[in-house]
Amino acid sequence: MHIGVLGTGTVGRTLAQALVDRGHEVRMGARAAGNAKAVAWSDAAGPLASEGSFEDAAAFGELAFNATAGAASLEALEMAGAEQLAGKVLIDVANPLDSSEGTAPTLTVCNDDSLGETIQRAFPEVRVVKALNTVTAAVMVAPELVPGDHTIFVCGNDEGAKTQARGLLEGFGWPPDSILDLGDITAARGMEMYLALWLRLWGATGTAVLNVAVRTAP
Amino acid sequence: MHIGVLGTGTVGRTLAQALVDRGHEVRMGARAAGNAKAVAWSDAAGPLASEGSFEDAAAFGELAFNATAGAASLEALEMAGAEQLAGKVLIDVANPLDSSEGTAPTLTVCNDDSLGETIQRAFPEVRVVKALNTVTAAVMVAPELVPGDHTIFVCGNDEGAKTQARGLLEGFGWPPDSILDLGDITAARGMEMYLALWLRLWGATGTAVLNVAVRTAP
Repeated sequence: MHIGVLGTGTVGRTLAQALVDRGHEVRMGARAAGNAKAVAWSDAAGPLASEGSFEDAAAFGELAFNATAGAASLEALEMAGAEQLAGKVLIDVANPLDSSEGTAPTLTVCNDDSLGETIQRAFPEVRVVKALNTVTAAVMVAPELVPGDHTIFVCGNDEGAKTQARGLLEGFGWPPDSILDLGDITAARGMEMYLALWLRLWGATGTAVLNVAVRTAP
Repeated sequence: MHIGVLGTGTVGRTLAQALVDRGHEVRMGARAAGNAKAVAWSDAAGPLASEGSFEDAAAFGELAFNATAGAASLEALEMAGAEQLAGKVLIDVANPLDSSEGTAPTLTVCNDDSLGETIQRAFPEVRVVKALNTVTAAVMVAPELVPGDHTIFVCGNDEGAKTQARGLLEGFGWPPDSILDLGDITAARGMEMYLALWLRLWGATGTAVLNVAVRTAP
């Protein structure tokens, strides 16, 4: 599969590498082609890897990941271009974190809206799936780093898009019954607001390699 | 122990009953003494149970639970009175849910503040512990309803208060290693914002008798 990964940070590089490792052709996108991190990754990752602008990566991919910083995602996606993304699945793994205050990070959008919904509204032709934003990058592509069973969430308005996302998650090692569909894209509120708890779980346990297992009465 | 339970809803009645069942003397508080639900509970619950105004219940308790609706908690606590609560542990189990829009509930406070912090600021002499707000009432006092291990959170500024809260939680059946201290009262943000996710977990799994188990890398 041809996949565009928007973003050159830890999350983008981790996802891009995991996708290449599974045989996908991946183009990493940045503000402009030739981004140093994207070039370094692409050079090291071999013939399935390439890099370019956000627009290049979006045009290249049959499916794309939004792995840009949440606060900058809208702008990055505008640069990618609605035309390049139209009709495609966009897996949004970003969190709208604002760390600018210097104290505890807050969210740039929450409560009655979310980044996932914001993206879906701004790009109505894109099939947005929120996924993977509730775990650190390493765990996204290697759930076995966290022992035992644990849960990963997906949400979005397009069932077919969620099925495709599920397939990629299973490729990363998420067991089918660990993937919990929370419904339409408005569930992105809960998935993003969970970050406030996640940050304290990290602080309390001393590791970001953590996740939650959802348990229910039989 | 003498315990005041502020609130006559499902959460208040469930907590009050569980406390009486464990041998505590419990006074349930409402806006005014003689509240029909409080009287019905008190009459049924036997000699350890009594009812009165918020002020009566706060004065009666060596420790109190805030089990009022989150959006009304500040007012209820003002009625209880800072003097009646001063120096005491207040276990805040409320969620600041606003269901008035008719669609998905939102929070009346979140992101850079929380109900727990609001209460602590308004009543600086009270030793506020946020706890139990992440599970439905039945699970608060009977964690075994959810199979397997799962996690309950506490936070607050006063270590002694958290130790007391922990003891009560253990009395409800929470194993010591299932109780995770998230730090100071600002962690109430994450514990309350989690509600947005919890509501979708309820929707997706079809049961409110649910919880999460925190899992970390070894």
